[in-house]
Amino acid sequence: MHEDHLTVGQLSEPQLLARIFPRLHQGPGVLLGPGDDAALVAAPDGRTLISIDTQTQDQDFRVEWNNGYRTTGFDVGWKSAAQNLSDINAMGGTATSLVVSLSMPPATPVSWVEEFADGLTAGISGLGAAECSVAGGDLGRGRELSVTVAVMGTLAGKPPVLRSGARPGDSVAVAGTVGRAAAGLALLESGMAVTGLTLEQRDLMDSQCRPWPPLAAGPLAAASGVSAMMDISDGLIRDAARLAAASNVLIDLDPGVLKSYATPLEPAAALLVADAMEWVLGGGEDHGLLATFPAGIQLPEGFTAIGSVHAVAPPGDNGVRIAGQAADTVGWDHFAD
Amino acid sequence: MHEDHLTVGQLSEPQLLARIFPRLHQGPGVLLGPGDDAALVAAPDGRTLISIDTQTQDQDFRVEWNNGYRTTGFDVGWKSAAQNLSDINAMGGTATSLVVSLSMPPATPVSWVEEFADGLTAGISGLGAAECSVAGGDLGRGRELSVTVAVMGTLAGKPPVLRSGARPGDSVAVAGTVGRAAAGLALLESGMAVTGLTLEQRDLMDSQCRPWPPLAAGPLAAASGVSAMMDISDGLIRDAARLAAASNVLIDLDPGVLKSYATPLEPAAALLVADAMEWVLGGGEDHGLLATFPAGIQLPEGFTAIGSVHAVAPPGDNGVRIAGQAADTVGWDHFAD
Repeated sequence: MHEDHLTVGQLSEPQLLARIFPRLHQGPGVLLGPGDDAALVAAPDGRTLISIDTQTQDQDFRVEWNNGYRTTGFDVGWKSAAQNLSDINAMGGTATSLVVSLSMPPATPVSWVEEFADGLTAGISGLGAAECSVAGGDLGRGRELSVTVAVMGTLAGKPPVLRSGARPGDSVAVAGTVGRAAAGLALLESGMAVTGLTLEQRDLMDSQCRPWPPLAAGPLAAASGVSAMMDISDGLIRDAARLAAASNVLIDLDPGVLKSYATPLEPAAALLVADAMEWVLGGGEDHGLLATFPAGIQLPEGFTAIGSVHAVAPPGDNGVRIAGQAADTVGWDHFAD
Repeated sequence: MHEDHLTVGQLSEPQLLARIFPRLHQGPGVLLGPGDDAALVAAPDGRTLISIDTQTQDQDFRVEWNNGYRTTGFDVGWKSAAQNLSDINAMGGTATSLVVSLSMPPATPVSWVEEFADGLTAGISGLGAAECSVAGGDLGRGRELSVTVAVMGTLAGKPPVLRSGARPGDSVAVAGTVGRAAAGLALLESGMAVTGLTLEQRDLMDSQCRPWPPLAAGPLAAASGVSAMMDISDGLIRDAARLAAASNVLIDLDPGVLKSYATPLEPAAALLVADAMEWVLGGGEDHGLLATFPAGIQLPEGFTAIGSVHAVAPPGDNGVRIAGQAADTVGWDHFAD
């Protein structure tokens, strides 16, 4: 049997785990790692942030995209890390550890699982979450590939940053990229063969497959006196509407800044006969941060001013405007058709 | 549209969440519950136990079994709670909170999801995990139903109980039931119509669909000086072999005690022309505890002596014997065919 063709169905669970564990980083915050019924993780200030996210084949990624690109195990591992680390970032915290549950068909190559573990490790260290370790996990069968990560984090004694703290007079700012992952998704779903794409276009695909949340920005914002914050995972307008609703305010976005996010995406939009501004307004998965800061606070490094907070909108309004005009709720809903 | 026929595909994610949240218990250990990017949970002694487990349709349960029984959302919710609470129990800890990720086809009835939430809540309170709350979660689409729970727990300052602490001369004990869930599984997978079963046989099915881990026993064992402990989730022999390997010892089981677990299962075994002892030796999913106690320690309430710990077995031995005779490794492996 060639190692290349070995599938998970040909190994026992302990054999498979023995191939995964050495690839997973374990730092000092993990007091007890894999091997028992639960792991034990440090929670230095007596509290722990916790979030959970699932990626499922054909819902959150395609094994093979229309343009011929095949999602690697490395991609899925990296994205699992990125999505979850971003949730801790959005609270102003720092990730300490994560646990992983991986469900897959028995025909899944063992090499895919090894790449997945490598991608998880590379995502954690590449994104700068050096203190975060993989504390444990679970393996199981499924008809489709599905990976769930639960991530824990610490606020180091600080209060959590909520969605509900924005007040009229605050400025609105964004950290990280906006619209790039959506442009990458459009390229992946297009009939444009991946082999014909430019480096810049492949970079956009990377933003979708291996997003780069700005993990330094969350704790920096918390230390600077941010009033509200969240992860932009389902689209700028949709997520801004959620923050506006949680804070009972109206958010007005600056069309000039929105345009500055759209301009670099214009070549890809022209290629696909698409609208770059739709990617900026509706695209999620870059996992940037949307935050509000009280007047007089200098925006921390990594944040760009993008609008302002006003008194609550009339009922029926989605709470988000662009230069005073109503902005449609565009973006991703997991169930709406 | 009749409420009875409403599917998750007909609701937005916020609408669906609004139906779930009120059904989930939130206790004092959850400092910040659902609604932000992460929850914040108390970790009173500066550490948190964490474990993660997935249940997938057609792997861990069937939507409709051979005998006609349909798995309810309540069953899946209860079992998710039970499986995960058991992992904390096995470490000698007490569960503080859990987060849930639910993936499902858009055609899933909303009532199924509501029942799932009710089952989760009922499992937590019914099993006596009064301090445990649902802190948050994630919803997504999948081709199959899949639920992943990550559970956190506290050791209240005590060291964790590991699999590796058994020593020659220790006694081996079990808490909870053994073999009942496997008997229930055999009934579910049989052609025997559920309507023709006795109350006792339906109780066995309940042990499979809504297991009852002995949550008081774990912390009690820890307080009594237990030397090693684990959850029996994949079968008594298989899990005993894991404990033996982790501790580098040999475990010898008492056939008389094993027989006392098999005897009440004999009527179901006769009905199915099966071997009750195989259920006792190979059946998991009752989520009882397997523990070892140093000589001279009185077994805490809920534990039954079932064998003894001896010096390490020769290489190649699986580390488990019954009255000195080699016991085959029988039980559940997620990938072996």
